[in-house]
Amino acid sequence: MDQRISLVTLAVGDPERAAAFYEALGWTRADSEPGIRVFDLLGQSLALYPRADLARDMGLTEAELGTGGMTLGYNTRTKPEVAQVLGRAEAAGARVLKPAHDVFWGGHIGYFADPDGHVWEVAFNPFSPLSPDGAFRWAGYPDTDDQPPQSG
Amino acid sequence: MDQRISLVTLAVGDPERAAAFYEALGWTRADSEPGIRVFDLLGQSLALYPRADLARDMGLTEAELGTGGMTLGYNTRTKPEVAQVLGRAEAAGARVLKPAHDVFWGGHIGYFADPDGHVWEVAFNPFSPLSPDGAFRWAGYPDTDDQPPQSG
Repeated sequence: MDQRISLVTLAVGDPERAAAFYEALGWTRADSEPGIRVFDLLGQSLALYPRADLARDMGLTEAELGTGGMTLGYNTRTKPEVAQVLGRAEAAGARVLKPAHDVFWGGHIGYFADPDGHVWEVAFNPFSPLSPDGAFRWAGYPDTDDQPPQSG
Repeated sequence: MDQRISLVTLAVGDPERAAAFYEALGWTRADSEPGIRVFDLLGQSLALYPRADLARDMGLTEAELGTGGMTLGYNTRTKPEVAQVLGRAEAAGARVLKPAHDVFWGGHIGYFADPDGHVWEVAFNPFSPLSPDGAFRWAGYPDTDDQPPQSG
């Protein structure tokens, strides 16, 4: 597992309202799609994603997710790596919340919680390959429908 | 406000135990000091910091911090920028948890919560200047005592 975070996903009530806050700080969004807002940072991206959807994807209730809920994303270069990283995390003491599985948008993801409860999403996204140095850049949706790419 | 995160700080029960988990995933720590563990990532660092200390620094109870508590750090290049960023965040709808203030280790920090409750630490750290591209790298403690550098 390389030493990087690909995506910081903040659970928010309203992605558009949340994005307006970060734009007011001077940031520029990478994309604007229904249901998700993304800002490219140094080496990774920040995503603003509906709280209810993030809770569903993680297999938690909104109450369990709580205020301030977020995930740290680790993107892999290949599909089999997702299960490998989850397996390694489990062997190291993590709890796998969702095993590696295909998702409707064409990706392959899973979730684990570290021993203190911090949740990581491990993802292979064939539409947003990592740069040679491992940096993640938002490449938009594979389709133009209204489905957010984090669902699973 | 530049478009970057300098530090992701995870609240943990025991930083050494938490660091062992990430080392078991294949990561190498940047430093090993009493009370805090740090891993340098792409463009920023991940810090593992005692839950009780993070709650205290943020002015919250441990119950308010909750499982999965963390902060996103934004480091500035100059001391006055800390208050400027906090002011800009407040004007954009954030709640300032702690205004800009000097801390014992020689830094100058403040905290704000974005409209969805995600907490940012804004920090000027004269001992860890940002690289030209804005990347943050852990430079260790200014002193060798047992005080963690995030306290405030």
